[in-house]
Amino acid sequence: MFKKIDHVGIAVRNLGEAMKVWEGLGLRVDEVEEVPDQKVRTAIIHIGESRIELLEPTAEDSPIAKFIEKRGEGIHHIALGVDDIEEHLRELKEKGYQLIDEKPRIGAGGAKIAFVHPKAVTGVLLELCQRE
Amino acid sequence: MFKKIDHVGIAVRNLGEAMKVWEGLGLRVDEVEEVPDQKVRTAIIHIGESRIELLEPTAEDSPIAKFIEKRGEGIHHIALGVDDIEEHLRELKEKGYQLIDEKPRIGAGGAKIAFVHPKAVTGVLLELCQRE
Repeated sequence: MFKKIDHVGIAVRNLGEAMKVWEGLGLRVDEVEEVPDQKVRTAIIHIGESRIELLEPTAEDSPIAKFIEKRGEGIHHIALGVDDIEEHLRELKEKGYQLIDEKPRIGAGGAKIAFVHPKAVTGVLLELCQRE
Repeated sequence: MFKKIDHVGIAVRNLGEAMKVWEGLGLRVDEVEEVPDQKVRTAIIHIGESRIELLEPTAEDSPIAKFIEKRGEGIHHIALGVDDIEEHLRELKEKGYQLIDEKPRIGAGGAKIAFVHPKAVTGVLLELCQRE
């Protein structure tokens, strides 16, 4: 079952400048974290039960760097919170949804995450996200 | 003050097909509504304190039609819930943020809404949204 919007991930060129922009809107960056697996540095903004994650690439072959090169800065993905990510991935696979990750990997904050392919979800890069 | 992610708006070509895809993921469409002001028909999925809104253009000059033509289906905007939208817009204008709507208009569900220009917000089309 889906519980909530866990976060929305936003691709940015420069984390320092992006943080100024988002804090100027009236939000507050709560933490900055490096996620080596995805080659990003992320600034996390808590809002209600969700987060906004600003994502700056730390390498040229980061998926975020490629996204920015192709489409510019902007919304990169949406992550929905689930209780049992393995079970959910099994169900989606059975139904024929194209998965990027058939098994979860570790994302920001130690969460278990997996991506569904945008071709399967009306152009949306969808992340499933299970936290403790 | 920002309270929560009110919704994420997703541009889709065909609402019926998109609903099947999103319901297949394990979500449920709670209502379908036409928003003439924005020339869209929207399917609303409640999730936690937020919503996912699937947006199908109802006219060729709909902003959603133009978005799909340019970039394909995908995440169109993110809307943050606020208490006092007029006050918030005044503050953003004072700070020099480029606004698409200097005054609120009426969106899905009768909410007061206003958009901030993506150029001002790291490529993100940001909506402020005040509900009763």
